[in-house]
Amino acid sequence: MDTKSLRINGKRLRSTLEEMAEIGGTPAGGVTRLALSDEDKRARDLFVKWLKELDLEITIDEMGNIFGRRPGKNNELPPVMSGSHIDSQPKGGRFDGILGVMGALEVMRTLHDSKVETEHPVVIVDWTNEEGSRFAPAMIASGVWAGALERDWAYARTDINGKKQGEELARIGYKGKAPAKKWPVHAYFEYHIEQGPMLEREKKTIGAPKGILCLHWYDIYLEGEANQVGPTPMEGRHDALCAAAEMILKVNELPDRMGGNMVATVGEIQNYPNSRNIIPDKVHFTVDIRSWDDEHALKAWELVKKDFQDIAARRGCPIRIEETWRVEHAPFDQKLVQMVMDSAKDLNYSCLHMVSGAGHDASYMNQICPTAMIFVPSIGGRSHVEVENTTWEHCEAGANVLMHCILKTAAAR
Amino acid sequence: MDTKSLRINGKRLRSTLEEMAEIGGTPAGGVTRLALSDEDKRARDLFVKWLKELDLEITIDEMGNIFGRRPGKNNELPPVMSGSHIDSQPKGGRFDGILGVMGALEVMRTLHDSKVETEHPVVIVDWTNEEGSRFAPAMIASGVWAGALERDWAYARTDINGKKQGEELARIGYKGKAPAKKWPVHAYFEYHIEQGPMLEREKKTIGAPKGILCLHWYDIYLEGEANQVGPTPMEGRHDALCAAAEMILKVNELPDRMGGNMVATVGEIQNYPNSRNIIPDKVHFTVDIRSWDDEHALKAWELVKKDFQDIAARRGCPIRIEETWRVEHAPFDQKLVQMVMDSAKDLNYSCLHMVSGAGHDASYMNQICPTAMIFVPSIGGRSHVEVENTTWEHCEAGANVLMHCILKTAAAR
Repeated sequence: MDTKSLRINGKRLRSTLEEMAEIGGTPAGGVTRLALSDEDKRARDLFVKWLKELDLEITIDEMGNIFGRRPGKNNELPPVMSGSHIDSQPKGGRFDGILGVMGALEVMRTLHDSKVETEHPVVIVDWTNEEGSRFAPAMIASGVWAGALERDWAYARTDINGKKQGEELARIGYKGKAPAKKWPVHAYFEYHIEQGPMLEREKKTIGAPKGILCLHWYDIYLEGEANQVGPTPMEGRHDALCAAAEMILKVNELPDRMGGNMVATVGEIQNYPNSRNIIPDKVHFTVDIRSWDDEHALKAWELVKKDFQDIAARRGCPIRIEETWRVEHAPFDQKLVQMVMDSAKDLNYSCLHMVSGAGHDASYMNQICPTAMIFVPSIGGRSHVEVENTTWEHCEAGANVLMHCILKTAAAR
Repeated sequence: MDTKSLRINGKRLRSTLEEMAEIGGTPAGGVTRLALSDEDKRARDLFVKWLKELDLEITIDEMGNIFGRRPGKNNELPPVMSGSHIDSQPKGGRFDGILGVMGALEVMRTLHDSKVETEHPVVIVDWTNEEGSRFAPAMIASGVWAGALERDWAYARTDINGKKQGEELARIGYKGKAPAKKWPVHAYFEYHIEQGPMLEREKKTIGAPKGILCLHWYDIYLEGEANQVGPTPMEGRHDALCAAAEMILKVNELPDRMGGNMVATVGEIQNYPNSRNIIPDKVHFTVDIRSWDDEHALKAWELVKKDFQDIAARRGCPIRIEETWRVEHAPFDQKLVQMVMDSAKDLNYSCLHMVSGAGHDASYMNQICPTAMIFVPSIGGRSHVEVENTTWEHCEAGANVLMHCILKTAAAR
């Protein structure tokens, strides 16, 4: 059959997303479906039930990743894969992650209904614990599957109550037998909400990120001198929180100073003893710098590090800096990115060539096979919050682009 | 007898302080003896044993305040009182509070040994829970005794584990029967470490504070907009932590801008969601402003409040301000302050007329009777920390000044 006129069923996609949003749904319209929680289990059970209705070959691996395989005409060819994650942030939104899994499911259903045959097999996937908000780090199960992280190390990660990820996998019945180990993949597409304001700002329906920004994480530790605030004159104080405040503003001003093309953020701070009448003597805070240009990000860091050292010296607050994590910018497969743009155009959707500021399971997949992502607008640019939202029209549009990218790559020999 | 040449026993005072410092002593040389803890109980038991050795009339009131009364020649006269507190901060020092109790005990022992008779009775006191670090607020039991706070309200204060102050008083056996209710007092002296650097800086042995600074506490609540940091451009962000950082620096600069004569501090901050890759959307921080001049402090607050509002408006971070606590500056009894200075001079100790930046049980006593304090130097100005220290020579000097002030006031009819 000619699949050019094939479209997914937007109403069905919506009702599927709505049914999923009830699992872990919050009164404010968001979702709390932490990785390997009872809510995650219920959502997985429903997902597996839906996969079975399509006669897909279901595999659950040692990391709890769920795969549903639709055979192609030539099953010796590597599959085209698509998916995302079912888990959410605490009080997160009802599109982040789940849209990519339900979007791929809707594509499978459409192929099934229309009895489309592809050359390559097509595999839908739910990656365990993308968020990393219960068990750090994020994207851990796609990382293990792609060979970048160790399975047993992942099992040993604990949540805030000391529960191990491996034990929680077993508890909810999703510690599968299949090795969490990559196999040859022809192409990987991940459909996701943008989580930023660019598509809305530019009034575009589809985003085709050329890749993921580099990510540099630093941890800063400052020491001051604790004293009763009343009897301690201002001169001669060593106030670690004041030193941190100056540094936080330096980070905030950094992108402007560097001429743009980057973001820089302090998201986390701990202050000690954190008592209203004692001068702070210990502060820890984090720095997150992202850019498409690794060198640009490094130059920015060198600049702000110098500022930090000057501030620490001037305030007599010794500083210790840890370079916690560094990921280089990851360009996606150019041909696949172009395919996303072309597919959007063919479907008459406006499209923006952009970047992804956030990491995704696609980051690890990009290391092992040609990869691209499809973004749709986040209303107000909001995500990781209960008010996260995307119009149903945009949900439908993204799934149509995903389907046509899958059809094109799975059709080719 | 002529008591002019009478001196306390510095060696005995030292060994008494050293014995007390073992109760709740920390490896780093400090003390953790939280109010109504097992350590507080052991310290109280030892204190009461020592009082009994001097044949003092011991009274324990409903708030656990411990009084030891030494009769005078005329027991219808109101007593001269002196004391401080046995409880400490967590990982606090071994002089804060306890020096004033053991100093008064050493005075009692000296009077006892020399068979000194005074006109007025003399009363030594240990006030329960001065620190307020386990059960807020601070100085609660002297506050109840002086009639400024309600007993049952004080009983209902809970610690971090939900234990009630009243129940913990009973548990350690110090919920006495005597009403926690003021009686006429002829004079109150509190001997304490300075907790600041002024005496050391000025190379003086004795501090005679003219009173306690005014104290203004504020709580600031900021709202921002939480978003994933990667995909959210710098422009258009509403970062509550950046707004707070600007405000913290404004508070720090305030005394300089006001031409001195005050201290201003942010000691406490909470940041939400406090995740390194999410823009902070809620920040709470505290402001503590102290000055000898209430009007000066209020003017400073009005100035910085205007700054806060400007910053909040510019950054699009709505602000809510609570005025949490306000205590006017408290001048001590001028005659008694002069007596402290004169006694120091007579004993050949250098003396500084100064202010107390911290509150003390003397704050409440000052509301009901003529009150003064005697300070001795804190090495490095440090207190509320394990390295808090005062030389034994200075400990002895302060106790001698205390004794002669007690002798002078208790001798007079």
